[in-house]
Amino acid sequence: MSLYVMKFGGSSVGNTERMQRVAKRIVEKQDEGHQCVVVVSAMGDTTDDLIDQAKLLNPDPPAREMDMLMTTGEQISMALLSMAIHQLGREAASFTGWQAGFRTESVHGKARIIDILPGRVQEALRAGKIVVVAGFQGMTEDGEITTFGRGGSDTTAVALAAAISADVCEIYTDVDGIYSTDPRIVKCATKLKEISYDEMLELASLGAAVLHPRAVEYAKHNKVRLVVRSSFNNNEGTVVKEEATMEQGVVVSGIAYDKNVARISILGVSDTPGVLAEVFGELARAEINVDIIVQSGVQNGEADFSFTVSLAECDNAVAVINNLKGHLPYREVTSEDGLVKISIVGAGMISHPGVAAQMFDVISKQGVSIKMVSTSEIKTSCVINGDKLNEVIKALHTAYNLDAEDQVFVGGPQDRR
Amino acid sequence: MSLYVMKFGGSSVGNTERMQRVAKRIVEKQDEGHQCVVVVSAMGDTTDDLIDQAKLLNPDPPAREMDMLMTTGEQISMALLSMAIHQLGREAASFTGWQAGFRTESVHGKARIIDILPGRVQEALRAGKIVVVAGFQGMTEDGEITTFGRGGSDTTAVALAAAISADVCEIYTDVDGIYSTDPRIVKCATKLKEISYDEMLELASLGAAVLHPRAVEYAKHNKVRLVVRSSFNNNEGTVVKEEATMEQGVVVSGIAYDKNVARISILGVSDTPGVLAEVFGELARAEINVDIIVQSGVQNGEADFSFTVSLAECDNAVAVINNLKGHLPYREVTSEDGLVKISIVGAGMISHPGVAAQMFDVISKQGVSIKMVSTSEIKTSCVINGDKLNEVIKALHTAYNLDAEDQVFVGGPQDRR
Repeated sequence: MSLYVMKFGGSSVGNTERMQRVAKRIVEKQDEGHQCVVVVSAMGDTTDDLIDQAKLLNPDPPAREMDMLMTTGEQISMALLSMAIHQLGREAASFTGWQAGFRTESVHGKARIIDILPGRVQEALRAGKIVVVAGFQGMTEDGEITTFGRGGSDTTAVALAAAISADVCEIYTDVDGIYSTDPRIVKCATKLKEISYDEMLELASLGAAVLHPRAVEYAKHNKVRLVVRSSFNNNEGTVVKEEATMEQGVVVSGIAYDKNVARISILGVSDTPGVLAEVFGELARAEINVDIIVQSGVQNGEADFSFTVSLAECDNAVAVINNLKGHLPYREVTSEDGLVKISIVGAGMISHPGVAAQMFDVISKQGVSIKMVSTSEIKTSCVINGDKLNEVIKALHTAYNLDAEDQVFVGGPQDRR
Repeated sequence: MSLYVMKFGGSSVGNTERMQRVAKRIVEKQDEGHQCVVVVSAMGDTTDDLIDQAKLLNPDPPAREMDMLMTTGEQISMALLSMAIHQLGREAASFTGWQAGFRTESVHGKARIIDILPGRVQEALRAGKIVVVAGFQGMTEDGEITTFGRGGSDTTAVALAAAISADVCEIYTDVDGIYSTDPRIVKCATKLKEISYDEMLELASLGAAVLHPRAVEYAKHNKVRLVVRSSFNNNEGTVVKEEATMEQGVVVSGIAYDKNVARISILGVSDTPGVLAEVFGELARAEINVDIIVQSGVQNGEADFSFTVSLAECDNAVAVINNLKGHLPYREVTSEDGLVKISIVGAGMISHPGVAAQMFDVISKQGVSIKMVSTSEIKTSCVINGDKLNEVIKALHTAYNLDAEDQVFVGGPQDRR
C-alpha cells in the first residue's frame, strides 16, 4: 500500500463528465490498495469568471477580498469531486486549505507556506476515506484566508505530499508529461521518461509551463517524487526526481524558449565603480525582474551593457534609467523587442564540454546571430531574433539527438494554476 | 452614532448593478455617522446553480459536502460587495461564518447556532471598517463548515445583531415591508408601520414569507429591533418589535393565507384512550408535520377527527395511517386538497372578544363554509375551500378596516434565504 497525492488541474475537472472521470480514476487507485489524497484546482474557467466579476465592481480590488473570492473556486471543485466519489460508493471528505492545515505568511495573493498541520487529513485517511483538498490556499496565524498565486495548486500538492510523507505526488494535467521541447514546434519531440529537479526547474522557469517552478523547488527541497501525467489517458508520464538516481548518458534533456523577452542596452557608460550597482539597485526598487546581463569590454573609459526584462516591464525599465540620466554618466539607452530566448537544459552538460559551443554553431548555421548568452551548470541560453525560432529549435532538437522515431504528442493547451 | 446590522437577500445583490446600489446604500449609512455590519446572501440564482451542479454528480449528495459547496455562494457575495464598497473609497472587510465567530451544533444543512464569538467583527468595526459577513453559515467545534437551512441569512443577521448589541437589524428585501395581506390579491393592502414579534411569527409561519420565523423567534428572544424594508427604494419599511412598546388600538394587523394545505380525516374511530396519541406519535416518527387538529364529538362510541398537513406530505400521512389499520380501530381514512388556510393575526385580539365570530360571519356571507378552525391568543385560522380565496381575503381586509386609501404596493416576488 502506498500513499498517493494526486493533483488535478482546472481543465481536468472542467465539467461534470471530466469530474466523473477523475473520480473514477481516484477510485481505481484506491482499488489497487493505495491511500489517496487529492488536490484540486478551480474548475475550468471559474477563476477567470470570478476575476471578471470582481473587475466589474472594482478595477483594483483589495488583495484580501480577492483571496476571499478566488478560494471559492477550489472549494466548489473539492465539494463536487467528493460528491462524485461518494456516488461511486466510496467515502470522501473535502477540506479547504485552512482545514487541511496550510499555515501561510500574512501576504495576500502570493503567500508562502510557513507550516502544514495535516492532522485532519491524516485522521480522514486512517478512517479509510479519500481526502480531497482545495489547492492554492491557506490561512494566516490570524485566521485570514490567503492564496499562493500562480502554480499554487501544484505547490499545495507537493507541500502536502512532503507533510504527510506520501510515496508519490502525481500531477495530472492535459499533456502526457514533460517533452524535450514544445511539440507544437517540433512534431517529433520526445516525452521524457525522467528528469532531474534542477533540469525541470530550468525548463519550468524557461516557459515549459507544465509544472510551476515553485512546486519543483519545494519538491527538490523535500525530496518529493513527482510524476507528471495526463488525466485523459493512462500513459506513463514523466518522473521528476533526484539526479543521483537517474540514468546517465543524456547530455541535453530539453529545449525551452521564452518569447516574453525585451533587451535594453545602455551605451557609453563611463567606467566608474558602482554604476552597475546603481542601475540594477534602482530597477530592483521598481520591482523589475532582470534576467540576463551582459557587459561589453571597456573602450576609451566607456562600456556598453545590455540586459533582458519581460516585455511588460520594458517601458518601465527604460523610464527608470532615463530618470537616472542626471547623475549617471551614460550616452544613450535603447530597447528592442521581437526577441526570443532559447535554452538547452541538461544535467549532463557540466561533464560534457563543448555543448554550448555546439549550440552556437547550430544557431549560426541557421544564419541567425546571437545577441546575448547566459550559462549555468545545467543550461545555456541564447537571445536571438524571434523570426527563425522554429527552425532554430528544430535544428537544436536534431543536433542533440532528441528527435523521437514515432512519438505522437498527446495534449492540448496546457493546464495552469 | 448607532450600530446597524443590514441584511441583503440574494435578489438585492443579484447582479453587478444591484451590488453597486447596495454598496452605495451602505456607504450612505456610514455617512450618516453610523457603524455598519452587513450580512449577505448568495447572489440571485447562485444557490440553485450550485445545487444543480451537485445533483448532476450525485442525486443524493452527502450533507457535509453540500455545506462545503453552498457556503461558497455567500463567500462570493461578501467578497464582491466588499470590493464594491472599496471602490467607493471606504474600507471594508469580509468574513465567512466561521471567521465572524458563528459556532454551531454538529449537524449539516440545518445547524443551530450555539454561540457567537464576534471578536474579529468588533475589531474591524473599531478600525472604522464596514464589516461584511457571509450569511447562512457557521462552524462546529471540530472546524466543520455548516449551514443554517432556509432563512439562514436572516438568522445570521439577527443573531449577530444580538451578539454585538446592535441598535437595529435592518432586513433589506425586494418588498417594501410587511403588508396587511398579500398585495397581489388585495390592491389596497396596507403596509404596516409596526408589528409585534408574535404577530410577525404568526404571519411568517402562515405564508407571508418576508422574514423567516426562526429569525423572528431569535429577534424576540434577544429583543433585537428589526426593520423590514426595500433595497430598491428609501421607503420606511415595517418595524418588528415588542408588543409593549407598540401603539394600541389595532385589533387585526394582517391576514395571511396558505395554499399548501391538505386535510386528512379518520372516520369512525373507536373511542378508546390512547388512539390519538398513537396516530400522531406514528406521524411524528415519520417526520410529518401536523398543523390543525379537530376532533368531533363522540357518537355511539365512535369519533371522527381531521388534521391538516402540507400537500407534499399528504400521501405519506395516509399511508402511515393505513399501516395502523391492523390494530387501530377506525372505519375509514379520507384526504382532501384544493383547500386554503386563512388566518387573521393581531395582538389586540386577546382583549377584543368577537373578532373570531366576525371572521366566521364574513366568510359565511361569501357563501363559503368553514371546514376547520384553529385559534391562538393572537390569531384565528379557518380552513376553507380554495375557490373563493381572493373574495374572502378582500372581504376580511375590508371588515377589519385594513384597506388603505391610496397605498401602492412596491415589490416583486419575495426574496428568500
